Order: sequence, then C-alpha cells, then structure tokens
Amino acid sequence: MYIISHGNREDVTDIVAETAQAIKDMRVRGAGRIARAGASAMGAFAEGYKGVSIEQFRNDAGAAAKTILASRPTAVSLRNGVLYSVRGLDGASTLKEAVDSVVRDSAEFVESSSHAVERIAEVGAQTVRDGDVILTHCNSNAAVGVIKRANAEKKNIKVYATETRPWRQGLITSRELAEAGVDVTLIVDGAVRSVMGKVDRVFVGADTVASDGSLYNKVGTSQIALAANELGKEFSVCTETYKFSPLTLRGEPVIIEERGREEVASESDVPPSVKVFNPVFDRTPAKYISSYITENGIIHPGAVFGEMLRLFGTGRSKE
Amino acid sequence: MYIISHGNREDVTDIVAETAQAIKDMRVRGAGRIARAGASAMGAFAEGYKGVSIEQFRNDAGAAAKTILASRPTAVSLRNGVLYSVRGLDGASTLKEAVDSVVRDSAEFVESSSHAVERIAEVGAQTVRDGDVILTHCNSNAAVGVIKRANAEKKNIKVYATETRPWRQGLITSRELAEAGVDVTLIVDGAVRSVMGKVDRVFVGADTVASDGSLYNKVGTSQIALAANELGKEFSVCTETYKFSPLTLRGEPVIIEERGREEVASESDVPPSVKVFNPVFDRTPAKYISSYITENGIIHPGAVFGEMLRLFGTGRSKE
Amino acid sequence: MYIISHGNREDVTDIVAETAQAIKDMRVRGAGRIARAGASAMGAFAEGYKGVSIEQFRNDAGAAAKTILASRPTAVSLRNGVLYSVRGLDGASTLKEAVDSVVRDSAEFVESSSHAVERIAEVGAQTVRDGDVILTHCNSNAAVGVIKRANAEKKNIKVYATETRPWRQGLITSRELAEAGVDVTLIVDGAVRSVMGKVDRVFVGADTVASDGSLYNKVGTSQIALAANELGKEFSVCTETYKFSPLTLRGEPVIIEERGREEVASESDVPPSVKVFNPVFDRTPAKYISSYITENGIIHPGAVFGEMLRLFGTGRSKE
Amino acid sequence: MYIISHGNREDVTDIVAETAQAIKDMRVRGAGRIARAGASAMGAFAEGYKGVSIEQFRNDAGAAAKTILASRPTAVSLRNGVLYSVRGLDGASTLKEAVDSVVRDSAEFVESSSHAVERIAEVGAQTVRDGDVILTHCNSNAAVGVIKRANAEKKNIKVYATETRPWRQGLITSRELAEAGVDVTLIVDGAVRSVMGKVDRVFVGADTVASDGSLYNKVGTSQIALAANELGKEFSVCTETYKFSPLTLRGEPVIIEERGREEVASESDVPPSVKVFNPVFDRTPAKYISSYITENGIIHPGAVFGEMLRLFGTGRSKE
Amino acid sequence: MYIISHGNREDVTDIVAETAQAIKDMRVRGAGRIARAGASAMGAFAEGYKGVSIEQFRNDAGAAAKTILASRPTAVSLRNGVLYSVRGLDGASTLKEAVDSVVRDSAEFVESSSHAVERIAEVGAQTVRDGDVILTHCNSNAAVGVIKRANAEKKNIKVYATETRPWRQGLITSRELAEAGVDVTLIVDGAVRSVMGKVDRVFVGADTVASDGSLYNKVGTSQIALAANELGKEFSVCTETYKFSPLTLRGEPVIIEERGREEVASESDVPPSVKVFNPVFDRTPAKYISSYITENGIIHPGAVFGEMLRLFGTGRSKE
Amino acid sequence: MYIISHGNREDVTDIVAETAQAIKDMRVRGAGRIARAGASAMGAFAEGYKGVSIEQFRNDAGAAAKTILASRPTAVSLRNGVLYSVRGLDGASTLKEAVDSVVRDSAEFVESSSHAVERIAEVGAQTVRDGDVILTHCNSNAAVGVIKRANAEKKNIKVYATETRPWRQGLITSRELAEAGVDVTLIVDGAVRSVMGKVDRVFVGADTVASDGSLYNKVGTSQIALAANELGKEFSVCTETYKFSPLTLRGEPVIIEERGREEVASESDVPPSVKVFNPVFDRTPAKYISSYITENGIIHPGAVFGEMLRLFGTGRSKE
Repeated sequence: MYIISHGNREDVTDIVAETAQAIKDMRVRGAGRIARAGASAMGAFAEGYKGVSIEQFRNDAGAAAKTILASRPTAVSLRNGVLYSVRGLDGASTLKEAVDSVVRDSAEFVESSSHAVERIAEVGAQTVRDGDVILTHCNSNAAVGVIKRANAEKKNIKVYATETRPWRQGLITSRELAEAGVDVTLIVDGAVRSVMGKVDRVFVGADTVASDGSLYNKVGTSQIALAANELGKEFSVCTETYKFSPLTLRGEPVIIEERGREEVASESDVPPSVKVFNPVFDRTPAKYISSYITENGIIHPGAVFGEMLRLFGTGRSKE
Repeated sequence: MYIISHGNREDVTDIVAETAQAIKDMRVRGAGRIARAGASAMGAFAEGYKGVSIEQFRNDAGAAAKTILASRPTAVSLRNGVLYSVRGLDGASTLKEAVDSVVRDSAEFVESSSHAVERIAEVGAQTVRDGDVILTHCNSNAAVGVIKRANAEKKNIKVYATETRPWRQGLITSRELAEAGVDVTLIVDGAVRSVMGKVDRVFVGADTVASDGSLYNKVGTSQIALAANELGKEFSVCTETYKFSPLTLRGEPVIIEERGREEVASESDVPPSVKVFNPVFDRTPAKYISSYITENGIIHPGAVFGEMLRLFGTGRSKE
Repeated sequence: MYIISHGNREDVTDIVAETAQAIKDMRVRGAGRIARAGASAMGAFAEGYKGVSIEQFRNDAGAAAKTILASRPTAVSLRNGVLYSVRGLDGASTLKEAVDSVVRDSAEFVESSSHAVERIAEVGAQTVRDGDVILTHCNSNAAVGVIKRANAEKKNIKVYATETRPWRQGLITSRELAEAGVDVTLIVDGAVRSVMGKVDRVFVGADTVASDGSLYNKVGTSQIALAANELGKEFSVCTETYKFSPLTLRGEPVIIEERGREEVASESDVPPSVKVFNPVFDRTPAKYISSYITENGIIHPGAVFGEMLRLFGTGRSKE
Repeated sequence: MYIISHGNREDVTDIVAETAQAIKDMRVRGAGRIARAGASAMGAFAEGYKGVSIEQFRNDAGAAAKTILASRPTAVSLRNGVLYSVRGLDGASTLKEAVDSVVRDSAEFVESSSHAVERIAEVGAQTVRDGDVILTHCNSNAAVGVIKRANAEKKNIKVYATETRPWRQGLITSRELAEAGVDVTLIVDGAVRSVMGKVDRVFVGADTVASDGSLYNKVGTSQIALAANELGKEFSVCTETYKFSPLTLRGEPVIIEERGREEVASESDVPPSVKVFNPVFDRTPAKYISSYITENGIIHPGAVFGEMLRLFGTGRSKE
Repeated sequence: MYIISHGNREDVTDIVAETAQAIKDMRVRGAGRIARAGASAMGAFAEGYKGVSIEQFRNDAGAAAKTILASRPTAVSLRNGVLYSVRGLDGASTLKEAVDSVVRDSAEFVESSSHAVERIAEVGAQTVRDGDVILTHCNSNAAVGVIKRANAEKKNIKVYATETRPWRQGLITSRELAEAGVDVTLIVDGAVRSVMGKVDRVFVGADTVASDGSLYNKVGTSQIALAANELGKEFSVCTETYKFSPLTLRGEPVIIEERGREEVASESDVPPSVKVFNPVFDRTPAKYISSYITENGIIHPGAVFGEMLRLFGTGRSKE
Repeated sequence: MYIISHGNREDVTDIVAETAQAIKDMRVRGAGRIARAGASAMGAFAEGYKGVSIEQFRNDAGAAAKTILASRPTAVSLRNGVLYSVRGLDGASTLKEAVDSVVRDSAEFVESSSHAVERIAEVGAQTVRDGDVILTHCNSNAAVGVIKRANAEKKNIKVYATETRPWRQGLITSRELAEAGVDVTLIVDGAVRSVMGKVDRVFVGADTVASDGSLYNKVGTSQIALAANELGKEFSVCTETYKFSPLTLRGEPVIIEERGREEVASESDVPPSVKVFNPVFDRTPAKYISSYITENGIIHPGAVFGEMLRLFGTGRSKE
C-alpha cells in the first residue's frame, strides 16, 4: 500500500497535497489503495493539526478533503475513504473530539479496507457447501478470494470461469484458480446458460454498487445474473463496502465507459462500415442479486442504502 | 444443387446408389442440398420403376430409402427429404398411384425446399416494421435473408450482430450485412443484455427443431432467448421445415457436439490443468420462442408437432 | 343477415358483383355478415355455373373470389368466408366435384358462422363454475354471449365490466348484462388490477387472431391479460374462427388503426401542444392467453395455426 | 384384457349389450381395459352386421355406441375407444366402406392402446440421459414404465418418489422401483422443493388431458409442476392418448372428486369441528408442462387439440 | 405555507390549539403544509416553554402532540411532522436538552420538507438520460417536478401522461408539462401497455408508503408498475419521506377510499342496477418498485423501514 | 419462564453457571425461554458485580457470556439474548455506565421477548381484513397467535391448515384453532396449490432468519411460499426478532437437520432398499417473502440486516 509517510513533518497540509499528487500521477493505483491513501492523508492532516478552533478545523478538513478528491473525482473508493474519515466531524463538540474522530475513523477505514478482501473470503467461503459447483465471471479479487479459500477448506468445489470477451480476463482467473489447485473449466460467454443447470452458486465482483441495490460490473454480468435467476441459483456479489457509491443516492448516474472497436474486431476482421459497440460494464438490477458479501457480512440488496448511510453518511454537508 | 441427372438410364437403382455415394463422399453438402438430392433420387427411382405390383414397389422404395439414409444417418434434412417423398405410399391403392405420389412429392419437396430461404425472407421481412432494431446471433442464412430483405424494402432497420465465440461467425454476418448496406453493429456475446433494451426483434436460425417445439442452435442462442423474453422482445426462429426432426417425436435425443479446447484457448492462454468445455449448440425451450418463421408460414412452437406430421408423417411404418 | 337472393337468375356472376357492391356500399356490415355474404355469393356462383371444364371453373371461381375480396380487402372474415368456400377446389378431380365442393363448403360456412356466437356461448358457459366472478372488456358479442348464457344457467356469477376508454363500450356491456339480470359492476380501466384478486375468469372477444396464437383486440386487452396472468387467472378469448387471419401466416402485419385526438380529449381539455396517441387495438402475446373458445371448441393458442390450415388452407394457390 | 369373445355368434348386438353390462358391473376395469372392451365391441358389432344400407348402419352403430357409453358415462377412455372406432363413418360412401372402417379402426385402437404403455416407456426412456435424477409423484403405470426402462437401459438414474398423501401411493411406486433395481428415495410431499435443485426431470402420469393442453392428475401434481418450472426443470406427462378428453373441447368441465375426511384424519386426530378438504385431483395449466409423452410421440401441450381431432374427431355428429 | 406566527405571545399552548383548529377547519391544507404547521407548532411550544422539569416537559409535549394529531387523525404527514419534532425527547437527559431537541428537530423538519419536492426533482432528474421516454400517471407534484427539471436540463425527453380516469388528472399533468415546454403525449389508461415498449422510465407519486416497501397511490398505479416490470422498465416513486407511514409498522391497514358512482358513470350512462366500484387508490407491492426517490436520496423498497425508524422512530412511547 | 432467582446471593457468577447448567440439562427449554434465561443471568451478573474497573468488567462479562453460550452453542435465540444484554458495553466509558447498560438491556430483552408473541399477534391481526381466507403450515405459536387474535376480533376469517408430514403438526394447529372457534379446514400438503386460489394470506412461523432476508422453517414452507407468489398472495412470516441470526451475517450456514426414515415410512411400508430423505427444514428465499411480522413491526426482508445490527450488533468484538 502506498501511503506517504508523515512521521515528523512540519506542515501536514503537504501530506494532503502530496497524496493528491501521487494519486493524480497514478503512483497510487487500484480502488483500495487510493482509498486508503486518501483516508490516511486525512488522518495525518488531523494528527498534525495546529489550529485552535473546531470551526477552523472543519473548514480546513473540508479543504483537505476537496484537494484529495480532486485528484480522481470519479473514484468511488477514494471518496468513500475520505467521507469515512470525516464522518464524525458533524457530531463533535470540541476541537479535540473533532480531531480525534478523524484520526480514529481514518485509521479504522485503512484497517478495515486493507483486510476487506480477506474477510470477504472468510465470509463467502463459509457459505460454500461441500461439492458446490461455482461460476465466476471476469477476474475479481474478491470473488477469486472466496473461491480459493473454499477450495483451501477442502470443499471439493468445481468452478466454471467465463472467457469474458473482449479482454478475456477469464484466462487470468482460470490460470489463478488452476494454480491454486482448483478444478476449473473455461467456457465461452455464450455457454453460460448451457452450464447453469449444473452450477450451484455464482460469485462475481463489483465495480460500483448503487443505493438502490443495483450492481455495475464487467459487461456480461447482468445476463449471468439473469440466467442464474431463471434457474433459481444464488447469485452473490463479493465486494468491499467502499464500492457502495453515495453519489448514486443523489441520483448521479454511473457512467458506463465505451471503449474502442479494435478490442472487439481488428481491421481485417470486419470492414469499417461495421460499427462496434464495446461497453465495459453493465447494470444488474437488485432483483437478480441474492446477496452482497462484504467485509461487514452478507446483506440483501435492500440493505445497501442503510450500510451506505452508516459507513459514509450522505456526505451532503461536506460539499 | 447437386442432383444426379438421370435422363435416360437403364437402371434407376443406380441413381439411388450414386446419390448415396455422393452424399457419403461429401460431394453433396449442406443440409438443404443433401435433402434435395435424397428426395430427387427417390423421385427418379419411382419414375423409372419397372416392377408390376404395389407391394413390390413399397418394398423396393423402402430399400431405396434405406440406402439413401445410410449415407448420412444423423442428417435430419436428408431423412425429411426422403420421408416427404414417400409420404403418399401408405395411402395409395394402385401401383400407379403409389409411383405417382413418390414422383410428385419428391418434386414438391425439391421445389419447396429450394425456395425455402427465399420464402422465409419474404415472410419474415413482412413482419419487420419501419425503424426496427434487430439482433441476430451466429450466421444463419435464413435469418440473414430476412434481415437483408427487410433492408432492401427500405425499412430503416438497425442490426446488432453478436461475435459468437468461439468461431466468431458474427464477423461473417456483420460483413455480409454491411455489404448489403445494412446498418450493423458488432457486439461481444456478453453485451447482449446491454443492448436488448433498444432491440425490437431477435432473428436466429435453427440447427434442429424438436417435436416439443424446442430449438437446437448455436451455443449462446438460449441465453439470447432468455434475455429477449425478460424484456418482452419477440424472439423468432427462421428455419426451413426440413429441420423439424421427426426422430425427436420418438424421444431420440438431439446430441450436442462438444469440440476441442484449442478453439477456445490456445496452449499459451491457459495451462493444461484448466479444462475447457466447448459445446457447439444449446437448447432453447419452447416457452422462450415467440414463433418459427418457415417457408410455410409463421407458427407457434406448439404447432411444430402438427407440421411435422403433416409434412413427414411419423415415419414409423417405413423403418 | 344480408345475402342477395338468387332464386332464378340468368347470370350468376351478377350475384358476385352485386354482393361485392353491397359490401363496398356498407349495405352489408359486421364481420360475420360480410363473411357470410361473400361465402353465399361463391355458393350461388357455383350453383349456377354453366361452364364445362374444371380448369375453366377454377379460373372463373378465382375471378369471382377476387371480385368479392376487392370489396373490403382488409376484412379478415370476408377473406375467410371465400377461402372456406373454395377450399375443396384443389382436391377436386371433376367439374362436378369442384362445383359440389364450393356449394357444400359455402353452405357449411354460412351455417357454421351464423351459429358461431351461440355455440361459443354454449361452450364457454359450460366452463363457468357456480359462483365465478368474471371480468370482461369492451363489448364483445361472443364474450357477452358466454356470460349471459352462464347467468341463464343460474351459475350465480358476478361480472366486472371495464369502462373501456375512449369509446366507453363498457357502458353498453354493463347495460346489456344488467338487462339480462346479471350482477354487473362497472369499473374504470385503471381499476382492473384492483379487482383481479377477486376475479376467477376473464372473457374477451377478438378482432383478429394471428397464426402465432397472438390476439389483436380493443386497446387495454393486453394489460388485462397481463394482470390475469400475474395472479394465475384464466384469460379466455371468445371468438368465431373466421377471425383467424391466414394472412398473418405469411407475415402480413395486422395494422393497428390510430384514431383522432378528439376522442380522448376535447380542445378545452388540453392545449394543442399536447399530443394524443389513440390506438384502437393492442396485441396480446400467446403466452398470456389460456385458451381460445371458438364454435369448434376450446383450443390452446398453439393450435391456432392448425385450425387455420384445416379451415381455410393457406390460400396460397388462389391468389 | 377383458374382451368378450365373439367368434361365431348369431346376434352381434348381444356383444354390445354384454360388454356394456360387464363394464357397468366392474368386471372390466381400468381406463385402458374398458376402452379396449368398448372399441372391440364396436368392431364385433360391425363385423357381424347384417343390415343393407349405410344409413341404417350409421343409425345402428350410433345406437350401439350409445349403449356402450351409457355403461360408464364419465370414462374418458371408453368414450375415446368408441369414438376412434367410428371415426371413419362420416367419410364412408358405401356400406362396405363404413363397415370396414369400423372393423379396422376398432382393431387399430385395441392394438395401439394395448401397447401404449410400452411405447411410452420406449419413447420416454430415450429422453433420459445418463446420470439423470428423476422425480415422480403418485403411482402412474406410464411414468413408472419410463423410469424402469431407463434403468434397464443402464442410465444410472436416481429417483425421488413422493409419498402422495392421503393414499400414500408413493409407497407402491418406491417399492416397485426398488424391486426393479432402481435407486429410489422416498420423500414427503412437502419436501419436493427441497430436492428439486438436484432433480433433472419430472415424470408424472395423467388422469385426463384437456383440449387446452392442461392436465388433471393426482392432487399435488400441479405444485410439483410449479416447482419444476421455477427451477427450469423439464416436467413431462406420460400418458396414453385415450386420456385426451374431447368433451373438454366443448367446455365440459373435468369434475374433481372430493373424498371423505377419514382418509386425511381419523376421529382421534382432530375434533369434528375441524373440516377436511380432500380433493383427489388437481389441474396443472399448460404453461407448466414441457411435453406430453404419448404412444404417438412427444408433443407440446399446444398440440393436444390437433391430436384429439386427428384421433377422435369432435364427436359432434355422433351424439 | 401556513404557519401561525408566534413572535411574542404569552401562552404558547395557544399556538398548539390554534394550529390544530386551523388544520381542522381546512385553513391549512395539503399533506406537506399540515405536516409543517404541526411541526412548527411543536417547535413554538418548546421555544416558549416555561416549565422547570424534564418530566413535566415530556408530559406537556405529549399533550401538545395529541392535540395537534387529533385535528386530522388519518394524516400520515401531520403525524410524521410531530413525530420528527419529538424524536429527541427520549434521549435527552436535561430539560434544556429536551427543549433544544424539539426546537431543532421541528425546524429541521420544516426546512427539509419544504424543499423536499425541489430536492426530489434534482435527484430524480439526474437519473434521466438524454433521450429518455418517460411515462407518468395522475398528477403528482414530485413526479412532475422531476420531469420538468429533466426537461429544463435539455435532456430531450418525451413523456406519456395517462388520462387517469375517473378524475382525468392526466389532463392537468399534460397541460402543466406542455406549458413547461415538454413534449407530452396523452393516452387513455388502457393504452399503457401499448406504449410501454417505447418507454424508458416510469415516474409516479405516492399517497402513502408502507413499512414493507409497498406503495399506495392513485388507482391504476399498480398495473402500470406491473407493465413496467414485465418489460424490465424502471419504475420509480417520487415521494417526500413524510409519506412513509409508521402506523403501517404496527400493522395498521391503509384504508382505500371508495367514492361515488357518479364519478364513473352518470344516470344516463347506465341503469341503476349496474353497480359501480370506484376506489381512489391501489396498492403496488414492493417487488414491482425499482426505487423510491426521496429528498434524502434514492432507496430500495427494502430500505423504507430503516428510513422510517431513522426519521420518525416507532412512535410507540409517545402514544 | 425459568429464570434462576438471584435475590440476595453472595456470588453472582454462580447464577451464570447455574443458568448455563439449567439450559444444558434442558430444565430450561424453548427458544424464547432459554434466551430470556441467558439475558437474565447476564443482568444478574452485572447487578451483583463487585469489580472496580471497566476493563475488568468487560473481561468478566465476556467470560460470563461465553459460559452461557457454551450451554447450547447452536441456539440462535440464546446467543441473541446475551448479545442484546452486552450491546452497550463497547460504547460505555465508565464502569457504572457499563454495568447499567447490561442491567438495562438484559431487562429490556426479557421484557420485549416475553411479550413478543402477543405483540406479533396484535400487529399481524391488524393486517387481516374482514372475510380473509388464511393458510398456515406446521404449528407456529406466532402464526397461530395472529390467527386467533384476528378471529377474536370478529374478522370472519377462514383458515386452511396443512397436515405437515411427517410429524403432522397440522393436526395440533387445526385442533387449537377449532377450539378457539376458528373456521378451520385441514388439507394434505399436496393440496396447497388446489386451495391457494381461494386464499388471501399465508402466515407461517420461523426457525431462523438469515441476514440476506431468507427464512429457514419447517419443510414444505418454501413451496407454499412459491405457490403464494405464483398467485400474488401475500406470504408473511410471524417471528420474534431473536430468531434473526447474526451468525448468518458472517456466512455461517444454517444446518438443516435430517431425521430418521421411520418418521416417513415404517419397515412394513417399504423395503430397506428404498432410501428415505427426511429433512426437517427448508429455505425460502427472500424474494418470496412479502414481509416479516415481528414484535417491532412489519418489515421487508431487505430490512432484516439493519434490524440485526440495531438489536444485536455484529457481535464481532465479543468473541
């Protein structure tokens, strides 16, 4: 994890600026890592705070948060790391209370999020029964973690991994699982419904989770959820809670990136008059999701909103 | 079409044998062509028949049929071409009637089947409304025929073609459509549900149609049908009636071929401990099929059985 | 019923022309009446035929049919009356057989269709159980006939009739039922789902029935079917078989008429910048239809195609 | 099979009367046996017919049919045996043709129905794949026949048999299957959904099949069909076609017998103020039935009407 | 907003009584306005409180609350305004804390509720994508607010407004939208499913929201929800949180008012023997609701209970 | 209720040990009773606490909790009683606060849980409308309580009780209801779908409720839920909140006990080669559950997680 060390520095606002710069420069990468870097910077900022009034601290903390968020405005996890760190600010009545809350909550976020994948693996693996056949899509750390742990617990599982065109991340997933000794079978994306009858559980990851319980994840996810639902198979999303996006609370749409045609078909494959539509993600409605498996436990999609509020507040007063 | 000419020959049974040989040697290929070759040989056999009793003719015709069918025992279309040719045999009461019926029915089959794709195009294109967005899968002559005709009729259509892994026949489809001036967009198989909201109609082809109204077609078809059904979009199967398999009437299962791993992933893609499951077809249950569009018209899946009986009989007495 | 009398006339082709004119002039109106007039004219034509060859008769009958059909080209019932009358032409081998078949089939059509509503009432009423609560939409003779007969059989039924905006035919239906002593309750169209829990059966009529088993009927029908299906209530369509349209077999779309804005909202109701969409009919897919109740019995939507062929042929060779 | 022998008798009408009496006295029992006895009597009646006009024969045959049907007016199979025997009467143009048709059709019915269970077993067993897990309900000869045959063909099947309260016919089924060497597991009726996830196929029998494709069978059948449908498992009805009831065509309701309270709870089980509802059968709508497996092949529920017409006519003119 | 001014008054309990009277006399009307009047009166009561013990304050506040609630016992919003104002009473440990909490919470409720429609518009409009086609029912301020805002943001939307019989509030909605420059099309209630295929989103308002996530709104709402669900279209309820009814928590049924027959049909329309059922509202189950769009954000129906508790408590101890 | 009296004892830790022993020895039985005994012992422990530091108290309370939980490690209710009692420990800052919180929360749990069934009856009965037909399964105190109360309120209800094989607890339920004057009808488990059309509401109890909103209850429950869902009937679970299992949060599977074969079939019923599968419970997924009716109100399955957290915390830090 990249967290700028801030042992004995003069000016803590430098830490904030440096962290922001490191995120902007991509020196800190990955949803979890940037979130922890942001939370950590907020903690360092509080720890080194020299001001004398709570009002001033609230202003300065707000400015620090803004600086950090500006480094990657669309990163849900970064925003959540910062929001979590300042969630005690409003309730504090003295400067000390305010400073302490930021120090404590930023540390709590860093601790919790850095063990999240491992805790998800523990929780998810517990739900796997001996002999279960599992299907997974794309290459999700959290989902692969659950599967590897269930396998390590000798549950005699068998896994189907989808190829996941156009990037074929299923090759990575199947390789990782095979190396961990899992009995894994690769299928093309079109063969999902062909094997669903033999599947007991589906585990996928998440890019973003919305306040209405819906999921944004790698393209193809929603039709796997549909196929699982058709045959009454449990469809579980393995995800860190920092992927729950409070912005969706206010109606902000999750933008689905569209990428270039060459990822799908080369120039020699089709003439230029053939268009190509290449979205990276799709949206799975809450009704097809059996549960979210998070580091805080297994929840129904209808409970996402409550968890968001509990963890990150609405964030309204901070902006 | 490959039909062995049989103008002025001595021994018509030679035609039967030669046709069978040509099919066996793959000199005659393609579901439609071998069906017509078989029917045609039965017609030639009848036309040249020298026997004097109807009983003898029934026996000889049965033997001829057996010879032809043995050339490709699993070809549904060949079996149907022969069954159609002899469907009047049981009802005939004189040798002349029997011979005439075979001559007439074999000619009828050849005529009807050779114009089937064109008639399906006419029928299917009529159902397309101005501005419709169509999705198709794999590369079906019948489905592509419908789409090209609808486009030629200036219906302002837009088409999504799926890539169709592992063979990527969607590249061919999109190229063919683009060359015909159709506005076509290629998508990966996982993106079907992402575009289904904008789609009005799905047209696919058929490999085999079973007596219970279910469809066997290229892998991926059934999950497209599922996605179309989820959003209430019409899912139509464009198919010649010679793909209706009377064998399924008697419970004979349609075998779904599984092909090699290298079609899905090369040796460098995944280690050998990763298994690969590569089925060519899948089965779409009748409940997800809005209609079959055939050269004889548009029918409900519940009407497949009746059409099978009407066209090919049960075939029981001939075997 | 308006059938031009043709006792002792010189030239039967006059009957054909006169009938066509009467239909064109709207002197003969109503789906059933024009169908019977058309069939009747074909029968009269055959009865008075003076020609001497079957080939000539086929040509002349074809011409007569064309004349009649041209009087109302979009009338499914008229077309079916004529098709039914000539359905034996192809199979006939002598002039007498051909003439006789037209005379017989035209009479058969007239007889069957003129008692169709009554037979549907008999059949439908049988399916009603004591104490059933029935919902009906718009004002269908066949559906009202079933309900009145069930009531006359003392089945203690209760009926909900929808208002059916914009024309409010539900007022007519509820009045007719009340006058027949039926316990009838009028509801607005939006209240259908509010009462569906208490309803046992839905009976509606048909404008046109397509070969794929789908129904075209008064706007609002399809959402009643949806609501009935949601709660597992039987949804039955009461219809004469002459509403089965063989044109849909070939893919000809059923055109849904759109009518003027003033039927929905007057000038004082809304400003002209408010658009109005006022379709007369909607389409109910086969999957929401439990059965068609016809004068020939109760059938599954999957059996519509077979009945069409049996009654009217494909009509291909006659055009 | 009980068929009154009628080698060299004087008065064939005696055979009709005797058969009717034997059915009435329950000397002939079982749906199949009484159907064959009725058909056989009609055949004997025709064979021994001494009259000289076809009109007279039609009348006499009608009277004979009435006598037979009166012996068990609610038996669908008996009615079908008789209807099948006379189905050629209307089309016959000479007395000989008429007599021959009854003789031939009655024999055909006897032959076909007496091998029906065996043919259904052949057809159904073909559809079973190696390793299939099958669920069955109550004790149906046809369904048990399919399962035993599939087992005899070494398909490594495993079977769940429901107890089927209140009569517990599942004990008989499980005993019969165990004796045939089938791996069978007994479950209570409430455990159906608990095992459905592991089940591949459901096979049940039929009491009566209606023209709209719906099934009347032992109480509990419809909720098994619902549970199979929920998880996308195939639900097949194994039945002789003589259980297709043409009476349902005309709307005649299938009456579901209600039996006594003591079959469900003894006097010591519950006080008399507790009511008991004990229906013998329930109705499964067509939409939950994947296919009917009959001696004539595998059909979609939408094809039941067509088969009824083909086999038994509408029966209208004979009554 | 009608809030009785209470600048410099002697006896604050008069404010409570006067507010109650004003509500009773309908001088204060509208769900939002009476809620704010009630909350405001509670705040004024606290602000002017002269007592000296917290116990006494709790009693007096309880009495004041009772007086206010008695003015309109069935008004969910009024009850919520009062409950929100006193929600801090139980947790307070000194009189000052108790008084302050009522003053603060009553002000917070007034502030939040008076901007609720505007905030809902902001949130909802954000979720609308460019080119969306929206359907709305009846005339909901909140839903119309969302639509107008989305239009003002130049999202190129198109709207279908239902007529909403019997009161035809759709005329008002379509007029309001047209005046705001929205492209709006009026349809009859029966045409909802006819246009649903072209619709992207449904926005409706709420009368009452129950703790199980279900919605009570203008009759017709639930079948629109059903039709939206059938085609996978998002169905969103735009509502202020003061319509969440804590009474439903305890099982109190939401009474659906039935109004007079003359609203549906005049005396000349139908004879008096025709009954009329004219319910004002219907109930939409949670499973058909994609989300509630509130001033606090977008939530899943499963999150309604949690929000109720958070905002209004269970109210148990206050009654 | 069995709570060990602890008026004036020397050593409060004895109470903990004695309670644990009493639970182990089955002197205290029943989910509610053991939960209250456990909570009560924790309260007594706190009340008599002699230690001087909060840290020590936390340790000692943890040890006491462990002792109690060890007496019945799989009892969800016992665990919840203890967790509820210590839920204020983490937030306390002084020994007095800590002790007081345990005393208060343990008393609160005892009070609330001992009136839970009665409160559920109040809440549930309120939701029953006049004339409702109710179905219940097995013998649940909470569900029977709701029904008896609704009957006592003169709501003219009618009840179907399922036999519930293999133990036939439906006999007890129907007897209890009949004795309370309820109009009750007993049916076999297979007849549920036969009566569901006439049913308005289903009330069942709970064994365990999982954090994803799913229900574990007597075998047969899930297929009743499925049948209720098919016909749009409300399916409500009447349950004390102490059956919400926080262990499921962490993925711990709910083990479904399998019992002996003799409960289903005696030795004379079937030969030993017939296997018997006899699970006690089944799992009903959240999507088929309309609501949970608890002593804290009516909630959506999506709200179970939030209630668990609110009542019992995650329990993580205490173990």
